[in-house]
Amino acid sequence: MTITPDFLESLKLARKNNPSQKTEIKIRDITLGGGEKIVMAGPCAVESEEQLVRTAWEVKKAGATVLRGGAFKPRSSPYSFQGLGKKGLEILRRASREVGLATVTEVIDTRDVELVSRYVDILQLGSRNMQNFQLLQEVGKTGKPVLLKRGMSATIEEWLLAAEYIMKEGNHQVILCERGIRTFEPLTRNTLDLNAVALVKNISHLPVVVDPSHGTGVKELVLPMGKAALTVGADGLIIEVHIDPDCALADGKQSLTPGEFREFMAEINVLKEFWGRSLNSLSI
Amino acid sequence: MTITPDFLESLKLARKNNPSQKTEIKIRDITLGGGEKIVMAGPCAVESEEQLVRTAWEVKKAGATVLRGGAFKPRSSPYSFQGLGKKGLEILRRASREVGLATVTEVIDTRDVELVSRYVDILQLGSRNMQNFQLLQEVGKTGKPVLLKRGMSATIEEWLLAAEYIMKEGNHQVILCERGIRTFEPLTRNTLDLNAVALVKNISHLPVVVDPSHGTGVKELVLPMGKAALTVGADGLIIEVHIDPDCALADGKQSLTPGEFREFMAEINVLKEFWGRSLNSLSI
Amino acid sequence: MTITPDFLESLKLARKNNPSQKTEIKIRDITLGGGEKIVMAGPCAVESEEQLVRTAWEVKKAGATVLRGGAFKPRSSPYSFQGLGKKGLEILRRASREVGLATVTEVIDTRDVELVSRYVDILQLGSRNMQNFQLLQEVGKTGKPVLLKRGMSATIEEWLLAAEYIMKEGNHQVILCERGIRTFEPLTRNTLDLNAVALVKNISHLPVVVDPSHGTGVKELVLPMGKAALTVGADGLIIEVHIDPDCALADGKQSLTPGEFREFMAEINVLKEFWGRSLNSLSI
Amino acid sequence: MTITPDFLESLKLARKNNPSQKTEIKIRDITLGGGEKIVMAGPCAVESEEQLVRTAWEVKKAGATVLRGGAFKPRSSPYSFQGLGKKGLEILRRASREVGLATVTEVIDTRDVELVSRYVDILQLGSRNMQNFQLLQEVGKTGKPVLLKRGMSATIEEWLLAAEYIMKEGNHQVILCERGIRTFEPLTRNTLDLNAVALVKNISHLPVVVDPSHGTGVKELVLPMGKAALTVGADGLIIEVHIDPDCALADGKQSLTPGEFREFMAEINVLKEFWGRSLNSLSI
Repeated sequence: MTITPDFLESLKLARKNNPSQKTEIKIRDITLGGGEKIVMAGPCAVESEEQLVRTAWEVKKAGATVLRGGAFKPRSSPYSFQGLGKKGLEILRRASREVGLATVTEVIDTRDVELVSRYVDILQLGSRNMQNFQLLQEVGKTGKPVLLKRGMSATIEEWLLAAEYIMKEGNHQVILCERGIRTFEPLTRNTLDLNAVALVKNISHLPVVVDPSHGTGVKELVLPMGKAALTVGADGLIIEVHIDPDCALADGKQSLTPGEFREFMAEINVLKEFWGRSLNSLSI
Repeated sequence: MTITPDFLESLKLARKNNPSQKTEIKIRDITLGGGEKIVMAGPCAVESEEQLVRTAWEVKKAGATVLRGGAFKPRSSPYSFQGLGKKGLEILRRASREVGLATVTEVIDTRDVELVSRYVDILQLGSRNMQNFQLLQEVGKTGKPVLLKRGMSATIEEWLLAAEYIMKEGNHQVILCERGIRTFEPLTRNTLDLNAVALVKNISHLPVVVDPSHGTGVKELVLPMGKAALTVGADGLIIEVHIDPDCALADGKQSLTPGEFREFMAEINVLKEFWGRSLNSLSI
Repeated sequence: MTITPDFLESLKLARKNNPSQKTEIKIRDITLGGGEKIVMAGPCAVESEEQLVRTAWEVKKAGATVLRGGAFKPRSSPYSFQGLGKKGLEILRRASREVGLATVTEVIDTRDVELVSRYVDILQLGSRNMQNFQLLQEVGKTGKPVLLKRGMSATIEEWLLAAEYIMKEGNHQVILCERGIRTFEPLTRNTLDLNAVALVKNISHLPVVVDPSHGTGVKELVLPMGKAALTVGADGLIIEVHIDPDCALADGKQSLTPGEFREFMAEINVLKEFWGRSLNSLSI
Repeated sequence: MTITPDFLESLKLARKNNPSQKTEIKIRDITLGGGEKIVMAGPCAVESEEQLVRTAWEVKKAGATVLRGGAFKPRSSPYSFQGLGKKGLEILRRASREVGLATVTEVIDTRDVELVSRYVDILQLGSRNMQNFQLLQEVGKTGKPVLLKRGMSATIEEWLLAAEYIMKEGNHQVILCERGIRTFEPLTRNTLDLNAVALVKNISHLPVVVDPSHGTGVKELVLPMGKAALTVGADGLIIEVHIDPDCALADGKQSLTPGEFREFMAEINVLKEFWGRSLNSLSI
């Protein structure tokens, strides 16, 4: 294994100092990293109040405990839908209050960190911004949990060093999120890298969440890869659910319908008993 | 999903014609692809009769049903140990008879196919030879099951077309084996691609086996990725086990000791009950 | 060629509308994109006034016309040298005035765009920020030329769409900069992608500059890859030069000494006559 | 630079022992590796005598000195055209005699090495077979020059070790051929890696040839990348030329017509004077 002492030394705050060290992050009545498997769900983008509230009720009924939804959308083309911005944040907060779910949304500009922090429970730092070091530092100055997505071609070392940027500012509530890496394979949008999940759970005390929706870009792979991610040691999943995927303003092809999400959660629940009995106690 | 009708059309023999179509492959008293999860285990290379027989007893006791061991070793450098050749095949056969295990070994030359076929139950076609089309055709002319490893940077399409080469010669007993792809990540030897396993199980009726030992190159990842592979739908695993990894002539760093392999199998057995109850019935 | 009409249609501002269309960008008395090959040179990071002024004299004497030097340094680790910040900008301006060279430096925060714009001639947008869309828009609102580095695993399409973000804000002075992509090859820091340069020169009217220092990370490759880049159609080069590479605070291994840079420029000058006589008039 | 003494030590036969060491390979009246730039040209596959003889005359008139043409074609799908086999070899020999050109063709099976050796001047070992170690050894036992294509995701180290396999058998006439690596970029078929060419010319005394046709898969990139390859230090090029690319049985999209090839050679000739005056004398 090429995990050298120098490598571990560079992770002053993110590395485990003993095999059982764990960071638990409390979000409302949920605890991430404490053994329970958390599911976050919702649409890629907040499109309207009706869309979000209906989705929120659906994912809550199915067992999700965090509502996701983008207000500021980083899109490859300037001509694509860019999100509703502040209006999206307001819708997200209303849906959260009405339905009773914690929320996560992406922040993409240092100047917006304070604003977004007032509206949601978890700040998401997206893959395109994983090495936007100013933004990492700015979210590090808030008291909010941060969901740090791995860059689409970031090494595991770079990903953990990005977490280190946030933690160095005093915010140790970092949730790592694997969301697929860029490879040569054309049949999937990304290659969801569960090796990285297993490795990071050995190296770091931080909780890890997996995004099989973006990570594969293929609806049919969301369930099998989601189950595999939890089996490999992930603390939770983040899943795209849309009430009408064909009309989604972003990422419709990989979104589950509410009905598909209910089946997804039923299958995940079958695994729960297994995780409780797992003997796994690896350490490096 | 970019699985087009043209793509499926090109897989005349390997594609599923209905969601429940499955190829079951009988090897002695084992059936691969029929629902039972098979574990193949053994050293990377056959080094001596004593080494192999001891390993064979160990892996059999732990629950493996196929013994692996390389006689012809494809090595990057001509100055590395190249395997024992025909002597290795003889040792493999003696160990198989003494211990009572089916066997799999790699064949790397069209001229050796007939020879190797006489000694083992399953012919392995390694990742470096996945597009050695003459060798594919030659193993296609035998009546032997073939374990077809994915090339280290082969697309899923190329992998399935390689299977098509074997099947076109009349041999439909092809076992696909995912063994990790080459990416930019330096902490793992390869990136084991479970997306590909889930996708192939949807597209093709052929059984799929996963090699988390080569696929990660990291001993600590063999168990979590092995469990994840079976959870995602793989029909079996192939695991490197060495009685003395530090003295192995090849790949010691990723080999489990017999004791570690027993723990591995105990953990795998915990999952068995889950797989029996899984509701998963995906199709594309 | 997989350059579809849809692809070209998406590049409303960056695509060529006829084969001879070219954007020429004037920076002081230099014109980039007009046929003359421009060389930008200087240290990775501004470390002190003495270091920068000495380097500036050296690179000017050798034939460079733009001085590079980072004041805000995006570093993978929060524990690495992060640049001198505003003090670095001041040193850069003083060196520029004393020696008489145009300047380029990186901006990494939307909040700093106005500040940095006051100090330098060209704003650099680094590879880690290629999809920091807020920063792209912010530099698009200035009247300054922008050097847009390709993300380390950005496709050519994503790179051109990033340029589109800047241009959509009204700033058409975009200089594309190829700086190497991330691949599986461990012997070079990155794989400098000259295919992309040739392709972009066919698709877009924007000037293209190549960075063989970061692009290879290997001092010995800077000259051969620099010559090849200009031969393939690049409008200029950006080269790391340090008066004492062994003591550099960043990227010493790939920096040329002033003496090596003089030899580099001598060799480049040999090629100039050739470019003048080239018959090349490709178009897609 | 990560070229360690251990790395160089492993290349017992392929590494340079002093900066000016060069292997010159004589093929009829041509010398490869001696300073002159050689161009090999012809169709991807031998399709008929008429096609090959016409092409041979065309490429000879334009200045090529080696005729390429595949008789045994390694194709991803078993349902694609597989080449004319022995009949293709006969056509190749007749064209060679009639027109007066040296020839190169691929060998893909250990059992065919002796046969193919009787028909052509240079044996090509294709990218899919770069780690077919038995085939490497077999061509190493002939007295024929071998064109060794880099595997599509082979590291530079693996490529040089493959050469070592051939040389260890006593055949030191190895021509390395860079033909593009597999990356994430979808606009080109492969990413032609000129960094590797520059690096290998520093490390090894073997001649290097570049294939910009397969290496980019884009007709418009063949000339710029071909020029860049020679500028970076390659000893020659191998170019696909087809009398009627639209009707080619393989790789039509990247083939030049005879007319385009004449323009290509005219442009290459402009560069010749430059190479003669180049001061480049790099060494690691």
